[in-house]
Amino acid sequence: MADEVVLLDFWPSMFGMRVKVALALKGIKYEYKQKNLRDKSPLLLEMNPIHKNIPVLIHNGKPISESLIIVEYIDEVWNEKSPLLPTDPYQKSQAKFWADYVDKKVQPNGRKIWASKGDDHEMAKKEFLEGLKVLEGELGEKPYFGGEKIGFLDVAFIPFYAWFYTYEKCGNFSIEEECPKIVSWAKKCLEMESVSQSLSDSEKIYEFVLTRLATA
Amino acid sequence: MADEVVLLDFWPSMFGMRVKVALALKGIKYEYKQKNLRDKSPLLLEMNPIHKNIPVLIHNGKPISESLIIVEYIDEVWNEKSPLLPTDPYQKSQAKFWADYVDKKVQPNGRKIWASKGDDHEMAKKEFLEGLKVLEGELGEKPYFGGEKIGFLDVAFIPFYAWFYTYEKCGNFSIEEECPKIVSWAKKCLEMESVSQSLSDSEKIYEFVLTRLATA
Repeated sequence: MADEVVLLDFWPSMFGMRVKVALALKGIKYEYKQKNLRDKSPLLLEMNPIHKNIPVLIHNGKPISESLIIVEYIDEVWNEKSPLLPTDPYQKSQAKFWADYVDKKVQPNGRKIWASKGDDHEMAKKEFLEGLKVLEGELGEKPYFGGEKIGFLDVAFIPFYAWFYTYEKCGNFSIEEECPKIVSWAKKCLEMESVSQSLSDSEKIYEFVLTRLATA
Repeated sequence: MADEVVLLDFWPSMFGMRVKVALALKGIKYEYKQKNLRDKSPLLLEMNPIHKNIPVLIHNGKPISESLIIVEYIDEVWNEKSPLLPTDPYQKSQAKFWADYVDKKVQPNGRKIWASKGDDHEMAKKEFLEGLKVLEGELGEKPYFGGEKIGFLDVAFIPFYAWFYTYEKCGNFSIEEECPKIVSWAKKCLEMESVSQSLSDSEKIYEFVLTRLATA
């Protein structure tokens, strides 16, 4: 029986983009279902009754949610092509540590850059760039966070590149000036079709954010 | 070469208790180093420079932090005794989903029960008990969250039982009245020495919280 794979997503989500990148790297065909987060569909509520959010991967009828858990699931189930997590337990723990760091430091501060004002906005800019610099240190001279090949942390972090334009416009700074190696790394990732075709357009994300701020 | 295992911990931490339970279930001997979180030691800053918090497991000189990542590491490295995560990728994803749920819903609301007042306190009580009820539904009629044996989610959640007394005293409610199955499950877990000897004393945790509130 062929695998039936469905992704419930909302196009600007960096978490959804993680899943798209992972599926593309593995060469998995899937049905893409765009969800409207302000008007949650019965399918989304059925498949993710606990958090009621996207992304949700539905594999042969069984739902998995939380983006890093989904990427790990994809990596385990389709483990022959493009392995993402190292097999060594220590290396694996470090990849997971840094992906968790992205969720704890990059995502919330990035959001506050566009969603907050005044001191909160300034603090978020500072902490966002500090977080990127820590990641730049972790990248070091490696081509990818995963080493010679794209890996789990690359997949977890690259979707934020699609948001860099929004962070820069709303924060009035240049990420390339602050973290040139991160930007080089991102451009290198984007040379892969699996990545470039999975990321949403940066300018459309910025328009989405402006519309959202205007209608908040 | 024998494994050298060191745990940096602070005794009231539910996250540290997770690691203690996992090491005990696996029968791993380790050196326990108590850390003072208000006066961070050079060793802690060296071993966890990013988050500067406990628990940190140091295995043959290499540090691992973030409690769920540590428990998973322990499960992978010492995989012969007491396997915690299922081998089936879907079952594994679900155990991780629920452990993540504990981190997102139980821990922050539990903390707000003792650390906040007024509306925040009332909201936290409500959401804390709702979270426990969701977990009670997930437990269902199984003896453990892991099924017939203690598993990853059991290890992730059982340390909170040591905090139930504090939540109840500060929140003026009875968890046993609200979630009798959760309390039965916890008592069943405590029948195992690996669990009972790894959890800190409930009344001492409450005293710790009172002292902390008084000196805040």
